[in-house]
Amino acid sequence: MPEEKLFFEDASEGDEAPELSLEVTRTHIVKYAGAGGDFNPIHTDEAFAKAVGLPSVFAMGLMQGGYLARMLTDWLGVGNLKRYKIRFTGQVWPGETITCRGRITRRRSADGENLVDCELAVVNQDGQSKIVGEATAVLPSRG
Amino acid sequence: MPEEKLFFEDASEGDEAPELSLEVTRTHIVKYAGAGGDFNPIHTDEAFAKAVGLPSVFAMGLMQGGYLARMLTDWLGVGNLKRYKIRFTGQVWPGETITCRGRITRRRSADGENLVDCELAVVNQDGQSKIVGEATAVLPSRG
Repeated sequence: MPEEKLFFEDASEGDEAPELSLEVTRTHIVKYAGAGGDFNPIHTDEAFAKAVGLPSVFAMGLMQGGYLARMLTDWLGVGNLKRYKIRFTGQVWPGETITCRGRITRRRSADGENLVDCELAVVNQDGQSKIVGEATAVLPSRG
Repeated sequence: MPEEKLFFEDASEGDEAPELSLEVTRTHIVKYAGAGGDFNPIHTDEAFAKAVGLPSVFAMGLMQGGYLARMLTDWLGVGNLKRYKIRFTGQVWPGETITCRGRITRRRSADGENLVDCELAVVNQDGQSKIVGEATAVLPSRG
């Protein structure tokens, strides 16, 4: 049975998810390194990052992919997700504030399931794209 | 029963432990942050460390305390340790090579146990002191 995060009857095409915003710090990246096991120095060793020509360390793409997924599952329910697909469009640098967004693009029924298709985005404080994505969820019915 | 790392009969005052040396990197510090839960940005956020007047991030004292303990337990056996006491004498900076050392200062029997007292040290490649410490271990007998 789908999680009761959002009922199909209450979902309309064009509806937007509650946004999730976060100012990314080097400490977030360090915590994600330990949690995810990605110790590539490009993400957490400032001297290394500068030595290879970068302005600073930058976040792992899957870190902001994780924040986007949190926004999505807070909105629609993790148990309701059928598909989650993302593409990285820009690096996230410490000090940037990222905002995770979702919008229902299609509301439909198929094979006895009530579905919503969504477009997803992560942008920074200047509106620069960091991730574009899409998801499909099955929603519970009030009936 | 004590671990058979070193027999009491084979231990003499003045004997030295096999050294443990390591070049400390920012990635070691990041891994230790995740393992130990110390996310103080002074250890892993280069920009923060410089903003507060430091030349760079530096290692948590307990990190080199952990390396010293590894040297010690590789030598005498973790189950044989009765006492381990350390004092931090200097910060460890990325790029330094630290060496962990131990030496038996006293060999004695007390209350039916065969004991060794040891002095411990962590120094960098220039001999600068980072940790001084002491330990007591009970050693197994060949008898």
